[in-house]
Amino acid sequence: MLLRFALHGWHRCVRIPQSKCRPADQNLKSKIVHGVRFLALLVQKYGGTSVGSIDKIKNVAAKVAAAKRAGNDVVVVVSAMSGETNRLIALAQEISPLPDEREKDVLISTGEQVTVALLSLALKEIGQPARSYLGHQVRIETDNAYGKARILSIDSTKIVEAIKAGEVVVVAGFQGVDENDNITTLGRGGSDTSAVALAAFLNAKACEIYTDVEGVFTTDPRICPQAKKLGKISYDEMIELASTGAKVLEIRSVEFAKKYSVPVHVRSTFSDVEGTWLVEEDDSMSDVLVSGVACDKNEAKITLVRVPDEPGLAARIFGPIADAHIVVDMIIQNASEDGTTDMTFTVPKADHQKALAIVEKSLPEVHAKGIRVDTEIAKVSVVGVGMRTHAGVAAIMFQTLAREKVNIQMISTSEIKISVVIDAKQSDQAVRALHQAFIAN
Amino acid sequence: MLLRFALHGWHRCVRIPQSKCRPADQNLKSKIVHGVRFLALLVQKYGGTSVGSIDKIKNVAAKVAAAKRAGNDVVVVVSAMSGETNRLIALAQEISPLPDEREKDVLISTGEQVTVALLSLALKEIGQPARSYLGHQVRIETDNAYGKARILSIDSTKIVEAIKAGEVVVVAGFQGVDENDNITTLGRGGSDTSAVALAAFLNAKACEIYTDVEGVFTTDPRICPQAKKLGKISYDEMIELASTGAKVLEIRSVEFAKKYSVPVHVRSTFSDVEGTWLVEEDDSMSDVLVSGVACDKNEAKITLVRVPDEPGLAARIFGPIADAHIVVDMIIQNASEDGTTDMTFTVPKADHQKALAIVEKSLPEVHAKGIRVDTEIAKVSVVGVGMRTHAGVAAIMFQTLAREKVNIQMISTSEIKISVVIDAKQSDQAVRALHQAFIAN
Repeated sequence: MLLRFALHGWHRCVRIPQSKCRPADQNLKSKIVHGVRFLALLVQKYGGTSVGSIDKIKNVAAKVAAAKRAGNDVVVVVSAMSGETNRLIALAQEISPLPDEREKDVLISTGEQVTVALLSLALKEIGQPARSYLGHQVRIETDNAYGKARILSIDSTKIVEAIKAGEVVVVAGFQGVDENDNITTLGRGGSDTSAVALAAFLNAKACEIYTDVEGVFTTDPRICPQAKKLGKISYDEMIELASTGAKVLEIRSVEFAKKYSVPVHVRSTFSDVEGTWLVEEDDSMSDVLVSGVACDKNEAKITLVRVPDEPGLAARIFGPIADAHIVVDMIIQNASEDGTTDMTFTVPKADHQKALAIVEKSLPEVHAKGIRVDTEIAKVSVVGVGMRTHAGVAAIMFQTLAREKVNIQMISTSEIKISVVIDAKQSDQAVRALHQAFIAN
Repeated sequence: MLLRFALHGWHRCVRIPQSKCRPADQNLKSKIVHGVRFLALLVQKYGGTSVGSIDKIKNVAAKVAAAKRAGNDVVVVVSAMSGETNRLIALAQEISPLPDEREKDVLISTGEQVTVALLSLALKEIGQPARSYLGHQVRIETDNAYGKARILSIDSTKIVEAIKAGEVVVVAGFQGVDENDNITTLGRGGSDTSAVALAAFLNAKACEIYTDVEGVFTTDPRICPQAKKLGKISYDEMIELASTGAKVLEIRSVEFAKKYSVPVHVRSTFSDVEGTWLVEEDDSMSDVLVSGVACDKNEAKITLVRVPDEPGLAARIFGPIADAHIVVDMIIQNASEDGTTDMTFTVPKADHQKALAIVEKSLPEVHAKGIRVDTEIAKVSVVGVGMRTHAGVAAIMFQTLAREKVNIQMISTSEIKISVVIDAKQSDQAVRALHQAFIAN
């Protein structure tokens, strides 16, 4: 019945893309001072768990030096040592529960600063000349949205000089400066974006993202043992996977890679096996209906019950939510017979109480009969560029879920993705069934 | 006998002032962009123990806000939280016993960055608008001597703007950038120098140095219970005291204060009583023969026995030591009858083995008969501008020590200071006797 309800409202089903709320680095203007193309330049990024101790930093230094010895020029981007950013935030919160964003960025950007210095020392210690650079030193200029800044430009002069001198360049990820030299940070996963942006500005042959998994999998191996590593995946598929719960890469870094056609290689810090390449879509990809199945349990669903179905309603509801910087993911509204409608939308679980308070305030104005909240939901998605050319993916998906007696609460689609919201308790079962239906068969 | 020996060699007794080894910020060129004189501008500096915990940072915020409420504009300079710099250095040394100086500065400068952010947050939390600035943001430009850089200029534009906007400005001490934006640190006590330099460039009415003691004392109260706090002291006296073991202020910051006539108020973070003012010398000061008695146990004595007394000897001995950046404090050479001489000098105890190795290498070249080393020495000094106009201080000092049966091994003087090197075991006794003879009587 709810499936019918959702299908009924199909043509009005809207997804507000994240890029609407925050244009994704679109004002980027290149300031490449030395527009040299380094044929063998690699940008490598190592995350917090890869540099979480002195021994791990030494391990990273050995990998970097090996890449350099193999004939590559190397620029390394590092995150803070794992746990360090949280330690710093805890200090700030001892002073203020909601710390000022500018000062918080000054504080937490020290995490990456410590790592670049230590990694440079570790490289020098094994005989590899190296040099650290911070956001202000290579002028990774961003807007001034503290805590979630976007990169606008990078001055590659010093990096190019150091590379020419045979040095490995170690750049602090996650951080930049605005036009007035205020320190900014890029938000969650920001070091990925730093790395891809550097690869773009330096015309690197590839950006290697080193992490604690071996690549991008067809689905979460912890849920589905048949999951297999993808050899390659298109930028668009990765963007959809990132936005549907596959947390290998932050979405903004993938958008960046797509925009500048940066080949990205996601691979493990702790082994030498090939990982997954993010590349431009090619013909072979469209033969595959579904590349991945993703599951996101970090959303909550809010329903406004029986609001009058009249123009301007959505603006009155979602305006104040947007003003509070809460990202709304899916919105569904079903037309009804009696002139009222149920309006359902999802927000990040962490923001759902804030969103609820805002909606409750506007309750009299929108004449809703009530509010329902559900935090026990999961968004399960199938993603694949093959959907562009092949019909019937939705049908197979819905049949598969029906066979498993999984009730669908909401549906949203893009050209290469179908997402459904279901009961969180059934999500593992749904992921396994969909993986079996589309990929493992 | 040794006293006679020292007096015999008196005219050849040389002290290499620290400023010879490292000109003390003499190239300083003012770049004051807004040459406004703030009649009520205070620069306050809080050291590591004053900001050693979140509670202590909150205490500092309260003191700063009170000074602002009292009608002052306030610029605050802070050090790293106590223990933090050592923690960072230990991390670096896990990688490299002698870490690269550039990367070490990148690493340890994060300590002050954390503190400026936290103090700014604490100020905002109690309703006092505040803003942190790092060395590169207000362009505290230094030379590029990593780990011991000298301040060349400060761009006060942003500081002046923030002050005009009613904000307290919190500046990271100890750090700067060289002309190529490399991060530098100023060495031990560098935050004092940052504070005095800012006070000079901003034409502040005073620079308050908050510390864990109540001011400058006539001698160390732990050694001599009769020690009393000085109400004021001249820059020159403070420079001599700093160079003779009174570690309230680092010598370079006092030289800076003298050069730019910055009134400096040394006082306690943990009480409101007046401390000690460092000011220009005035007439009342010369009535006092001796202002302070200092004791320094951090030097070691090296003697080259029976070297031929010929031109160029000192250069051959001290050239290689200076090249190794070891600061030689006192040098004494006694002429003798048989054409040989004993050459005795002191170096920081921490450097004495390095110095010994260098001297041993040059042993054949200088034809010395042997080397003697003594680490169990103390340098006891009496300091006072009154010596300029009053004779007899040396005589009283030597008589006092003779009465106490303290043997004098070396003597060095300046216009306002007499230092003697004695057996470390007798140093407390000597300090108490000299304090009694000159000050407490």
